[in-house]
Parts: sequence; C-alpha cells; structure tokens
Amino acid sequence: METPLARTLYHEYVEGLPIADYHNHLVPAELASDRRFSDIGQLWVASDPYKHRAMRLHGENEAVISGHASTREKFDAWARTLPHTLGNPLFHWSAMEMKNVFGLDEMPDPSCADKVWDACNERLKEDSFSTMGILRGFGVKVLSTSDDLLDDVTVHSSVRGDIKVTPSLRADSVLGFAPAWLERLGSPKTLEEYLAAVDARLDVFSENGCRVADHALDDGWRFVLTDFETAAKLYAAAEFADVRLKSFVLGHLACEYSRRGWAMLLHIGAQRFTSSRLRSLAGPAGGYASIGNTCDVKSLCAFLDSQDVKGELPKTGLFTLNPADNAALAVLTGSYSQDGVVGKVQFGPAWWYNDHFYGMTDQLENLAAYSLMPQFIGMTTDSRNVLSFSRHDYFRRILCNWLADKTLRGQFPVDEAYLGHIAADISYNNALKYFYE
Amino acid sequence: METPLARTLYHEYVEGLPIADYHNHLVPAELASDRRFSDIGQLWVASDPYKHRAMRLHGENEAVISGHASTREKFDAWARTLPHTLGNPLFHWSAMEMKNVFGLDEMPDPSCADKVWDACNERLKEDSFSTMGILRGFGVKVLSTSDDLLDDVTVHSSVRGDIKVTPSLRADSVLGFAPAWLERLGSPKTLEEYLAAVDARLDVFSENGCRVADHALDDGWRFVLTDFETAAKLYAAAEFADVRLKSFVLGHLACEYSRRGWAMLLHIGAQRFTSSRLRSLAGPAGGYASIGNTCDVKSLCAFLDSQDVKGELPKTGLFTLNPADNAALAVLTGSYSQDGVVGKVQFGPAWWYNDHFYGMTDQLENLAAYSLMPQFIGMTTDSRNVLSFSRHDYFRRILCNWLADKTLRGQFPVDEAYLGHIAADISYNNALKYFYE
Amino acid sequence: METPLARTLYHEYVEGLPIADYHNHLVPAELASDRRFSDIGQLWVASDPYKHRAMRLHGENEAVISGHASTREKFDAWARTLPHTLGNPLFHWSAMEMKNVFGLDEMPDPSCADKVWDACNERLKEDSFSTMGILRGFGVKVLSTSDDLLDDVTVHSSVRGDIKVTPSLRADSVLGFAPAWLERLGSPKTLEEYLAAVDARLDVFSENGCRVADHALDDGWRFVLTDFETAAKLYAAAEFADVRLKSFVLGHLACEYSRRGWAMLLHIGAQRFTSSRLRSLAGPAGGYASIGNTCDVKSLCAFLDSQDVKGELPKTGLFTLNPADNAALAVLTGSYSQDGVVGKVQFGPAWWYNDHFYGMTDQLENLAAYSLMPQFIGMTTDSRNVLSFSRHDYFRRILCNWLADKTLRGQFPVDEAYLGHIAADISYNNALKYFYE
Repeated sequence: METPLARTLYHEYVEGLPIADYHNHLVPAELASDRRFSDIGQLWVASDPYKHRAMRLHGENEAVISGHASTREKFDAWARTLPHTLGNPLFHWSAMEMKNVFGLDEMPDPSCADKVWDACNERLKEDSFSTMGILRGFGVKVLSTSDDLLDDVTVHSSVRGDIKVTPSLRADSVLGFAPAWLERLGSPKTLEEYLAAVDARLDVFSENGCRVADHALDDGWRFVLTDFETAAKLYAAAEFADVRLKSFVLGHLACEYSRRGWAMLLHIGAQRFTSSRLRSLAGPAGGYASIGNTCDVKSLCAFLDSQDVKGELPKTGLFTLNPADNAALAVLTGSYSQDGVVGKVQFGPAWWYNDHFYGMTDQLENLAAYSLMPQFIGMTTDSRNVLSFSRHDYFRRILCNWLADKTLRGQFPVDEAYLGHIAADISYNNALKYFYE
Repeated sequence: METPLARTLYHEYVEGLPIADYHNHLVPAELASDRRFSDIGQLWVASDPYKHRAMRLHGENEAVISGHASTREKFDAWARTLPHTLGNPLFHWSAMEMKNVFGLDEMPDPSCADKVWDACNERLKEDSFSTMGILRGFGVKVLSTSDDLLDDVTVHSSVRGDIKVTPSLRADSVLGFAPAWLERLGSPKTLEEYLAAVDARLDVFSENGCRVADHALDDGWRFVLTDFETAAKLYAAAEFADVRLKSFVLGHLACEYSRRGWAMLLHIGAQRFTSSRLRSLAGPAGGYASIGNTCDVKSLCAFLDSQDVKGELPKTGLFTLNPADNAALAVLTGSYSQDGVVGKVQFGPAWWYNDHFYGMTDQLENLAAYSLMPQFIGMTTDSRNVLSFSRHDYFRRILCNWLADKTLRGQFPVDEAYLGHIAADISYNNALKYFYE
Repeated sequence: METPLARTLYHEYVEGLPIADYHNHLVPAELASDRRFSDIGQLWVASDPYKHRAMRLHGENEAVISGHASTREKFDAWARTLPHTLGNPLFHWSAMEMKNVFGLDEMPDPSCADKVWDACNERLKEDSFSTMGILRGFGVKVLSTSDDLLDDVTVHSSVRGDIKVTPSLRADSVLGFAPAWLERLGSPKTLEEYLAAVDARLDVFSENGCRVADHALDDGWRFVLTDFETAAKLYAAAEFADVRLKSFVLGHLACEYSRRGWAMLLHIGAQRFTSSRLRSLAGPAGGYASIGNTCDVKSLCAFLDSQDVKGELPKTGLFTLNPADNAALAVLTGSYSQDGVVGKVQFGPAWWYNDHFYGMTDQLENLAAYSLMPQFIGMTTDSRNVLSFSRHDYFRRILCNWLADKTLRGQFPVDEAYLGHIAADISYNNALKYFYE
C-alpha cells in the first residue's frame, strides 16, 4: 500500500475481518477429510492451472506441468518460471503465500528452490497446515464450493470445525444434456420430467444450505426467448444444442433460484476451446483457456428482462472475462431493480485472469463510476487451491490503496470512518448479507 | 484539482469563460416561461433519470422514484441514496450543485435532509433561482435544445434575456416512421413526398437558428447503402423497419445537413431496451438504459464514406456509450477531412454514463493519443436539468487537472500560456466556432 | 522519465543497446543505394502517413498533404499543424527527431519554420545523414524490411556497412489472388501448382535470410478450417474471395513458416476502407485507415489450434489495432505452447495508431498482468521512415518509466539489476533471440 491513509484503512478497518468466500472450487470431500499435503509441490504447483499456464509461457515441458513428473520436478519448473512472472498476479500471490502462510521471505527461484522446498515441507507437517487449518489461518468464516447438480451435497455439513461450508450449484451440466449425465438423472423422457428431476435436486441443494448458483455463459452465448411447447419438442427430439432449449431451461432455473431466494452468478465470456492438444493433455480446466469475444448485451438484457417482467429475477452477479465489457456490465446493474433490495444486480469482482492489481483496480473504477461501489459484494477466490484465500488479503489491500489514492487526489472526502466502513462492507459485510443472511 | 499548475490553468484561463452548450434536453417552453421550482425535490430529484437509477440500485421503492410520491419523499429517498454514490459522478455533481448554486457545504443525507430541504427551498424563492436565473448564474451564453422535427421551434426566440437559445434537431423520429408521427407530418404517400415534407421542416429549423442535428444509432445499428428506387419501394410498401430504407433516409438527411451547414451528432451504442417493467413504469428515458455492444465500425465507415464521396459529409461528432469504442472512434476522426475545415470529424465528449471523472479522462487520453486534442469541441450537458450545467465546471476542472498532470509528468511542455489557451479553446472557443459561427 | 529510478534503468541498462527492428517498411533499394535527402520536407513530411493524417485533422488542403505541392509547402503545412498535436505521439516523436537527430531544440511551428528548414537541410548535406548514416546513428544492428513474395530479396544482401538487413515476407498478396500478381507468379492452374510456386519463393526468402512473415487480418477476418479438396475446387473455380480458400492457404503458409523456423506476425483489426476519396488521392496506405471491430477470438483460436494440433504452429506474434482486444490477446499467449520454447506466442508491441505513451503503457500493463512481461519481444518501428527509429528510444524510456513507477509504488521489488536486465531484454535481447538466433 502506497500511502499512510491506505495503511490506516487496511489495518484499522479490514485486516482482521473474517472471510466469506461465496464461490470457489475447493473439493468438499477434502474439506471433510481435512486433507494433508505431502509436500509444497503437491499443495502449490501440481494442480494450479494459473501456474501451469505461466510455466507453458516459460517454455517448460508439459511433462513437468500436467504430466507425470514428480512434485519436486514440478516445483523446480515453477521455481524457474517464477522470476519471469513480474507484473503477473502470480508474483504477488506467491510472495504473499510464502510470507503469510509459510513465514518465508524468499520466493523459490533456482538459487533457493531447495531451501524453500525443505522449509515449506517442514511446515506442512504441522497440524495447522491441513486443509482446514490453512483456511482457519486465513480467517475464513463461510465458504461455498461449486457442485454439480448430481454431486453429493450432504458432505458439506460433515466438515468439522467452525467454518461454515455450503454447496453452490454449478449449473452448466443442466444446460449441457450430456448422455451420461442424463442417465444419472434418471433418463427423463420429457422436458416436464426433466425439469421435475432437476427441481428435486435443487430442493436437495437448498436443504443442504445452497444459496447460490452459477452459469458459464461462454463466448458465443445467446438467449432466445422460448415457450414451453417449443422447448418440449426440442427436448423430445433430443435437439440439445438448440439455443432455444438452452434458453428455456436457463429461464426455468432462474425462476427456481428466485423462488428459493438464491443468487445467480453469470460468468460471461470465457473461450475454453483454444488448444485441443492441451485440452487432451491437461483436461478441460488446464489453464489454457482464454478471453472470448465481448458479451452480447442484447441477449443478456433479453434474458434478464424475461425474468424481471415475471417478477422472477433472482439476485444476479455479472462477471465478465473480457474487461472490454466492464463498463457495459457495470452500467447494467442499474437496469433492473426490486423494491427494498439493495444492489440486486451486482458487477464483479474481477474474474479469473482479471484477478490482478490492474484488473481489480479497473473493475473498481468501472463499478464506482457506473454503479454504486459501496454496495459491492467484493472478492471471492473462484480457486481450486486453499492457498488462494490469500487473494482476499490481496484484494483488501488493493481496495484500501484505491480508496486512499482517490481521497488523496481530492476525489473522495477525507473521512476515515466513512471510507473505512465502505472498505469493511466491501471486504466482508456486503457478501455476508447478499449471500448468507 | 491536484496541483498548483492545474489551479493556475483553471483560474487564469477557463474559470470565467461563458458556456456554449450545444446539445441538451431542456424544455424550450420552460426557458421561455422562465419556470420556477416549488421545491428542491421537484427541481433536483423528481425528473432526473441519473438519480432514479442510483435510487433503484440502492433498493428504494419505485414509488419514490418514478411514482406518485411527494417531492419531499423523493428527496428523502435520494438523501438515503447519496452517501452510497461515492465514486459515481452523482456524488461530485451533487456536491457542486449544493455548493456552487445553493451555497451549501452539506449534501443531503438522512442526518441533514431537513436542513438542506429548507435551505434550498428558501433560495428557490429568490428571483435568481428561476430557470433562466440559474442558467445565467452558470454563465451560459448560448445553448441548443433538442427538438423533434414536428416540435414548435419558434418558441426559442421568445426566450428573454441575453442567453441565446436555439433549437437542434433530434432526428430519430424521421427514421422511426411512427404512424401518429407520419400523420402529423401530413401522411406523405411516397418517399418523395416524405422527404419533401421533412426538408420543409428542416428549412423551418434553419430559419429558427438550428445548426445541428443528432441521431441515436443504438446498439444493433447497421448501414446499407441503398438507392432511391429501392428505398421508395420500401416506403410505398410501408417496410419501415427495413435497414435499407432507414439507411437511405439517414443519407438523405446527412446531405441536407451538409447543404445547410449544420453539424451532425451521432450518439452510438445505447441499449435502451433493458427492463420492460421499468419502461412501462418510468417511460422511455427513465434511467434504466444501458451500454450496448460496441459500434459496427464497418457500417459507420460505409455511412460516412457514402457522404464523403459525394462531398456531402457534414461536420460530424461521434459519441459512443461504450468506452471500448473510444480508440476506434477517436482514430476515425482522421479518416475523413475537408480542405480548410479544422477538426471536421470530432470524437466526444464522454457521453451520458461516461460523463464522469474516469470517463472524461479516458476520453481525453484517447482523443489526445489518436487525434488532435487541442481542436476538441469540449463539453455539453446532454441533460434535462438546469443544475446539470455545473458539469461544465466539472469538465473544466478535470481538463485542467489532466493537462497539468501530463505536464508535471514531463509529457507536455511547461508553457502555461500554451496550455491555458488549449484549455480555454476546449472549454469554450472551439464549440463556439464549430457550432455557432 | 519521471523518477531517478527510471533514469537509472534507462541510462545504465538500455540507453546504449543496439536496435533489432524486426518489422518495418523501409525500401530495400534505398538502403542498398544509401539514399540521400534533398530537404527535410522530403525526408520528414512528404511520405509520412501519420503526419498526413494530422494535417487533414488540422484542415490543411490535400494538395499540401498527398498532392503535388513542393516539399517546402508540405513542410510549412506540417509546421502549422504541429502545435496542435499536443498529446499525440507526433509531438514527442517530432521533438525527439529534431533534438536527437538534428540537434535542434525547436520543433517547427510557423514562427520558426524557416530556421528549422534551413538548419535541417544543412545537416542533410553531411555524410552521416544518408539513409544508412541515420540508421547507424540510431545504433541499428539488424532490421527486416517487409517484402512481397515476388519482390527481389537479393537486394538486401547488397546493403553496405555493418547493419544486417534481411527481408521479411508481407504475405497478404498470397491470400489476395490479384490477377496481375497471379500472372507474375506464372499463372498456376491448380491449387497444387499455386502452392508449389509460393513455396519456391519462400525458399528464396529463406536463402536470403528471411525469418519472419506477417499477415494483415483486417476487420472482418474469419477462419474456417478447410480441407485440400475443397480449397482446390475453389481455386479451380477462381472463387478467390471465399473464406475457405483463404483459410486453407493461410494454414498452408503457417505450416511452411513452421518448417522453416520462421516467426509469423498477425496484424489484426485494421479497417483500411474508410474514405474512398482519400484512397484514390493518397493511395492504399495514405494515413486515413482506422481501427476496426474487435478481433473474432473464435476464428483466431480455430486457426492457431489447427496448426498446434498438427505440431506446425510457428512462433506467433499477435498485434491488434483495437486496444479493446488487448486483454484477450495478451491472455491468448498462454493458450498455446511448445516444450522448450520461451514465449512462443507473443502479444505486441502496441501497433500503429497505438504506438504512443498511453498505448504502449496499456500494452505493457496488459502484457504483464495476463502473460509474462519479461519475455516480451519489444519494439519494432513498422515504419516507412528512417527517422522513426527514434521510436525505439521512445519505447525504452516509456518502458523504464513504467518499470520504475511500478517499483516506486511498491508493486515490483526494489532490485535495480533485476529490473535493469528485464529492461534490456525487452529493449533488445529478446527480439534478437526470438527472430535472429
């Protein structure tokens, strides 16, 4: 943080706040079993697509990225790459994770990889370095994993300790109609049966504490308002790729979310099909995805309006992978409303590849200029890795820095308490209210 | 303003300049009758779509936004919302309007709403707080309202006092072909008759001082070069939604503007259809519109070229609601030219939702980097509210701040007079020359 | 440069480095003949589309821009325009070119045009002011001109002195199929013959030191994966505008580049058809082109994947004219990889109209945040003018300024040597390795 005011806001108002992480990809079973890690390579490198991506950029062999190399070999490849990440959030994240979790001043580079390897592995033997121990260390109070409709969501309640763990629905398979998935759902013959089977699972999610669902509206997504009859015929004909069937089911889900009081998160604009070679080597989430074309605002408006007009628009969070959409989506928060609901449609936080100093600041600038920033629901990790919870601290520092910078430039009033409470709301309170109360 | 140089530029070169507001939505009849305001709620809140939008974001009931609640209730709802607008231009605008117009240091929040209400209403009884009085207070010298082709534009000349008020043509209805509007035009049977009727009205506008027309090229706008025969057939067949008919008539109008020496303002990229519920409650300009997809540059070039090639491209101002278009439109200013015409195609100022610190600065950066910034025509309010004329001062401060910042970073020469004259030209002189001389 | 650290990085690490300019439009014959310039108007103004564009914006007559006016008249028109370019890179470039090449503190404006004219022309008589002399003065070590497939590329090796001059392939005509060009190629009757004739020329380019090819993927470019049979039929039917034929030939070329170890530069998103009037007056590269719509990421991914999946993706540089694409293209660098190849896919540098302080900084920010900035291949002029080589110094100063600014804000470690070596790599070493080793 660059200024005394930034430090004051951070230390006095947000540093000690707990964390409400409303969307991540932690594995519930690993939370329930409180998984331990054999070494820092396994914990930190082996399954982190962000690092894999950087290692590919650095020309490392795929064998030490997604291949069968040892965790030490993968760690060493990462140590070779890390000095070349200056400016990328991986650089700051790594420094914070080494320092704040492991107490190390160094980041691994080839000159000190051995030392870091040993020091981290030593710490990993401590009880406080289990999965739940690390999360406790970050001050997590509540978190929501991302679960398929057919996943077991009873496991969440079996997590021990004082961190509340709830499922959230990753709803993409409901619009995907994959044969094996349909079979697991009971091979519903009609659209009516299909929706009934889906809704029954939504009830199970609700019973297990789910309050939020998310959809990936990837590059190319369109919405076409469709009636039940048309959609039912398409379903019967197994025309599962038809945008009308997908649009209808999306609308059905949004209604169900609204009735259950869930929030709906729309993750817009990923381009997940880039290198088919890497897809086959590293799987569908292997770090090679990219930013797609900008969002089709017309479709997005048509979808939201179709819900709004029925009074069945759930609380909605808009995330875009393409920052060229930032202004458009920030403005859209003011296009739908509900009496008595504060900040019903939200924009952000900066998602995925945008989750860096520059991207977070740009999201804040756009949010503030085009919407009501003090109502912002703030950060979530969206990560598969427990160490990524350090990003909440990263976000909070950037937030305080940004608030202070604006103030010192004369744009915000010099009113520490006013600013500090805004910082605290965005850091924690708003998300708690929006998702968990 | 952050620096002594910024303050010098502002105070020595631009602070005292008059205002030429070349595009706004003031109601000519209210200028002619010099309308008075019963209370600050009526003047400031009841008909301001920007504030309505913020109030919806804050979860206020639609009844106190666009509904039949009293002006005091609306004012109170706004007072509840205002502290949550930090970072939004509404925050700065409100501070400036309270301070510079009403002499108040406070902005209304729930703790001081009564006091502000009373203090403002007291001032509104003064003669200098009539519509024209407020405009005089801002130093307005000339302004152009936005008038439909069939509006009475003789009322403008009946405005009393030394502020010159002229009509400008809001030409969208000419491409809209609404049945009732066509009837008012005399139900022309052929395209030839239609154009003749339109041109006759253009003459009336010219006679009443009109020198500028504007078009809303909303999200989805396309241009298809079309000949008279094709367009005439479409007109005869009442195919009024056909892009070819619209393109032809747009081209016809551009020719007429060029022949009359008018400028043409293109407002690109609004998405006005978001919530049909709010549209029905709050009307077509109720503050729920959003930013549409980026501009189709191919269509825009095709339209401008079709005029340029005939030597009938009027002076043209490009405005975009989507800031992702900023670079493209700033560059486009250098793609068309006319011997002896300085800055024939203009980009900006930052339009509508972009009319804030961040958006204005970004527009200036893009304009400077991709075009010739010292020739910029500068600010216009585009507003329905007389208090919005404070935005000229807001713009001027941001402009001086930006010029000074560049200078202090070593990017601009330390030459106060050179910079000051540029600031003055952009604040007033350029617009006067471009539109009114 | 704004800070002592910026100056240290610049002066200690990059100022004295040679230049590797891997893509420009210098005329090889003028390098071989070591062309002299009669006056500063001829050298500086008469054939510079950037200045022509600014002069049009300033309302100068086309006669003194692209017309037959004398070089002095053109110089005077430029001198009238220059004071109005504040904020545009032309302002900084002009100052640097006058100061660093001609030793003048003034830039020409109407008050000192005579003096500058005389002083420059005096210097142009000196031997060190020949084409090669000026390039030597800039410290150029290697440069690659842009040559059509059918151009004579033996002339490059006849350039005298210690600057290595190599051809690079401007491959657009290979996808253009212009009748006259096909005839010069020997009027190949089948696609097979066509590709054989093209490949034979690629061999000649290779023999003459070519290591890089570039393609203009203008606004509207799409890629459709196509098999040989389909493409061959289209070729036989002379369906040269068909996207499938163009896609197939592009794929063929990419394979050939890959096999020869060439890099492929993709220049994405220009809109070259704006004013047909100016096109006819000033030719196809007359400074009136604009920024087109954003890139179709789907097509780009489909093209790169079609090569990657075959193991025939060459080193690839992505350039966009639309800065709204910056994040998307910066991220795409991490979507394709090759074991052992550092920074296989590159993003940038800021291209053409983006080649200014703001655009360069934005490209660096995006590159750093979304990719691995220390591996960046850095600046190339892309210019027709020898004086434009001053832009390398401009870039280096901006780079050092940016690195220092980040450091002083606490975002980068205070490690001068680390930062300095990154600056040096980006300024020179990386390009040398990527293109010439």
